[in-house]
Amino acid sequence: MILSINVHLQYRLSRPTDLLLQIEAADLSDQNVRQTRTRFSEVANVSRIAADDGLGERIWLRADGLFQFDYSAEIEIDRPKRDLSTLPATPPHQLPGEAVRYLMPSRYCPSDEFQTFVAAEFGNLSGGAQIAAMRDWIERSFQYVPGASNAQTTALDSFVQRQGICRDYAHVLVTLARAATIPARFASVYAPGVTPPDFHAVAEVYLDGAWHLVDPTGMATSQNIAIIGVGADAANVAFLNIFGQAEFVAQSVSVSPV
Amino acid sequence: MILSINVHLQYRLSRPTDLLLQIEAADLSDQNVRQTRTRFSEVANVSRIAADDGLGERIWLRADGLFQFDYSAEIEIDRPKRDLSTLPATPPHQLPGEAVRYLMPSRYCPSDEFQTFVAAEFGNLSGGAQIAAMRDWIERSFQYVPGASNAQTTALDSFVQRQGICRDYAHVLVTLARAATIPARFASVYAPGVTPPDFHAVAEVYLDGAWHLVDPTGMATSQNIAIIGVGADAANVAFLNIFGQAEFVAQSVSVSPV
Amino acid sequence: MILSINVHLQYRLSRPTDLLLQIEAADLSDQNVRQTRTRFSEVANVSRIAADDGLGERIWLRADGLFQFDYSAEIEIDRPKRDLSTLPATPPHQLPGEAVRYLMPSRYCPSDEFQTFVAAEFGNLSGGAQIAAMRDWIERSFQYVPGASNAQTTALDSFVQRQGICRDYAHVLVTLARAATIPARFASVYAPGVTPPDFHAVAEVYLDGAWHLVDPTGMATSQNIAIIGVGADAANVAFLNIFGQAEFVAQSVSVSPV
Amino acid sequence: MILSINVHLQYRLSRPTDLLLQIEAADLSDQNVRQTRTRFSEVANVSRIAADDGLGERIWLRADGLFQFDYSAEIEIDRPKRDLSTLPATPPHQLPGEAVRYLMPSRYCPSDEFQTFVAAEFGNLSGGAQIAAMRDWIERSFQYVPGASNAQTTALDSFVQRQGICRDYAHVLVTLARAATIPARFASVYAPGVTPPDFHAVAEVYLDGAWHLVDPTGMATSQNIAIIGVGADAANVAFLNIFGQAEFVAQSVSVSPV
Repeated sequence: MILSINVHLQYRLSRPTDLLLQIEAADLSDQNVRQTRTRFSEVANVSRIAADDGLGERIWLRADGLFQFDYSAEIEIDRPKRDLSTLPATPPHQLPGEAVRYLMPSRYCPSDEFQTFVAAEFGNLSGGAQIAAMRDWIERSFQYVPGASNAQTTALDSFVQRQGICRDYAHVLVTLARAATIPARFASVYAPGVTPPDFHAVAEVYLDGAWHLVDPTGMATSQNIAIIGVGADAANVAFLNIFGQAEFVAQSVSVSPV
Repeated sequence: MILSINVHLQYRLSRPTDLLLQIEAADLSDQNVRQTRTRFSEVANVSRIAADDGLGERIWLRADGLFQFDYSAEIEIDRPKRDLSTLPATPPHQLPGEAVRYLMPSRYCPSDEFQTFVAAEFGNLSGGAQIAAMRDWIERSFQYVPGASNAQTTALDSFVQRQGICRDYAHVLVTLARAATIPARFASVYAPGVTPPDFHAVAEVYLDGAWHLVDPTGMATSQNIAIIGVGADAANVAFLNIFGQAEFVAQSVSVSPV
Repeated sequence: MILSINVHLQYRLSRPTDLLLQIEAADLSDQNVRQTRTRFSEVANVSRIAADDGLGERIWLRADGLFQFDYSAEIEIDRPKRDLSTLPATPPHQLPGEAVRYLMPSRYCPSDEFQTFVAAEFGNLSGGAQIAAMRDWIERSFQYVPGASNAQTTALDSFVQRQGICRDYAHVLVTLARAATIPARFASVYAPGVTPPDFHAVAEVYLDGAWHLVDPTGMATSQNIAIIGVGADAANVAFLNIFGQAEFVAQSVSVSPV
Repeated sequence: MILSINVHLQYRLSRPTDLLLQIEAADLSDQNVRQTRTRFSEVANVSRIAADDGLGERIWLRADGLFQFDYSAEIEIDRPKRDLSTLPATPPHQLPGEAVRYLMPSRYCPSDEFQTFVAAEFGNLSGGAQIAAMRDWIERSFQYVPGASNAQTTALDSFVQRQGICRDYAHVLVTLARAATIPARFASVYAPGVTPPDFHAVAEVYLDGAWHLVDPTGMATSQNIAIIGVGADAANVAFLNIFGQAEFVAQSVSVSPV
């Protein structure tokens, strides 16, 4: 599948302010960047740095006044379809260093609190079958309620409140997976058909020696997701971090199949 | 300074269990491993993996029955003494990718909650002078109370309760530093004179283009600290993760200048 | 001082729904209800019940469709002016049963977490002088930021974030007072000059054998406050509890000296 | 049933300290105090005050040095056996003032967070049948693990961790009941057969116009429970509050049928 992506951001800054953006889809073996164009207002400083796990890039900018950022791209996704439920778990002692850090709890994913629940509810399964059961349980038990969560909401809050948005769904799945000793990370992505159109977020789990995308909201599939970046949770892959004050002016995100 | 380190761990396992150990002091440009010996009970599987930020190693083991682990080493520390308060901050837009992830909140360091406090209390300072003021404020405001905290205690809890142990002191400093847009990470270390003798924990802050050790408990200095590993917070550098059940039998840690 | 109070509420209900309202100023020895009028849409059931501590009343209603509630009153406040800082503490063992429950932590006031902070920061004072120091510290350290808090925000959150609205200021003072073994409760009140015009909230502390109003926002004084009701914290004196779904239509509150 | 109760407490105080004790079984229409004896070390001050809801008493003491407290009693329990699952809910708008405060969230029972879960899981039931389903769900889903919780543990923590002791079981049931608009309070009680012998805690729910005991641990029944006191949660009915420092020396609790 080929996705056409267009993003427009506009903020007003009242003094020189550092901005960290993570918006461009990554160039990966299973997602090919066919066209890409990134433009933004004139700024004092720009530098590109590798994002977490070397997957994709972030842009540091030092801007002032009215700041505009435009990104458009065509991404060809050619991700093999795998039946999640048949993927075997990688035994913990065979996990590589880069996967091990995703066994650990993080800001929004306090997986250390969920071991008893996970053992009782999903302990009779393992590997991909266990992840599929967790995904189905979340989809069945949670209500998608825009506005129900905020920047402080953790997977623990969402688990109790049984509601949230894509970010929260992904946090809960990441948390349950880690509590079952399956490495899991948070992926900031583009996908068509997200309502309302916006950045999307899903989980990635490490099974059978590789990372696999899972969307507990059921909105997207691994065949139509373009990954921007990954990290321990939403704290690590915000599309925009502002180190100071900024006034929101406008934002639009559109993602459609070509 | 040369430190002689001896660690002995003993656990009883009732079935084959995966263990992840991070106990050996790292070999670094400013800490030289002169001698080292790691021995442990016969196990089914062993693999060494790189630890976070490629600093030090972890050992995966799959063990059963009575498990013993012994580590002894001599580490020569030759770390230049820097006056923390004179170190300039690195402007955010010049931070490299590997430092950026340490600006973000983590499991035990919800730095996103502390921006108003940090601006009000330490906003008139910057860089190393700001970190020194935070360190002094913590040392002045907190009581070192073994048993006051547990595995769930975050920097937010410690900030309110004004007490804790080295882990909690380090978490609070890491949290305040990040809230001031200074990258900060948690370091698991050995240091002499820690009472009672045990693993120790301190903070590392990124200033003037490099990482600098800071011990908000005042127990250790950068000249007598041997680093085991680093990570976002204590969740990422436990000396031992047990993926299953284990019965504690014995543990001893001794660290002394040669 | 005589206050003229006018409140208008309007909600739309899609099915018969139980509502609990606590809106009328209480009739007390130091606040005299000169005129009062409460009108509301026709409802299936109405009952008046005593509110917490027998101070004021609540109204149970079972309503449906468009629900309107109007309250207007004139309240004469004749509360002796006391210099807070001279009031002695009542020794704990002399506290009556009705004050004792206000020593204990509650939903939004986890005072059990603040004992070390309170002892360190305010431990050299006692009684009214201690409360005055807490009030001044809050007023100095906190920023009044509408929208910074929500229905889940506790005094612990506010203490860390150093911002909030009247509800949060009152919660923090109540929490600190209890941590110093001074009974403290939350009061839902009317006061002129609150910006924007709305219900207001303050703390009450038990000193010298009686309850005394304290407003840590500095917006109101005990001479121009009309109390609606009191309770352990905001959870216990909401102006409206809806046991079901309701759509907000309109709300206005005006309070002015006659 | 007649219960014989013996309690012995011993603490060492290093200075005059206020103590608040709530240890004596209450004298109620359905539990008759046949014999009772309370003795304690000589103290500077003593006063008895009514406990929450006027149910039982608390004792204020100001003590110093070695403090001993002994309580022995025979309590005859004559509580009609009711089939919980047949009790109808009292409609909210018919709830009396003294029950209304037990609809609200409290320190350890943040029932405001659980409405979606309760509606989804138990929304097809009401009244006593709903409470019975909640009790059975807790008994089925939770593990009784002494040491798993501490003085900060809330029902939200326990709900996530799926483990705790009697206090935590009671908090979870109280929380779920309130989230279903059924008043619920926490009862500190004596019951035979509690392992290890100790104070016990259960929930009370308001159904069909009266309070009914429910023990989600399954250890006790309403026929063999002697109530000490009630309150919003464990914060309000501690058997001992110490307003200062004390060193624990000894404690024993024995409860047996006569």
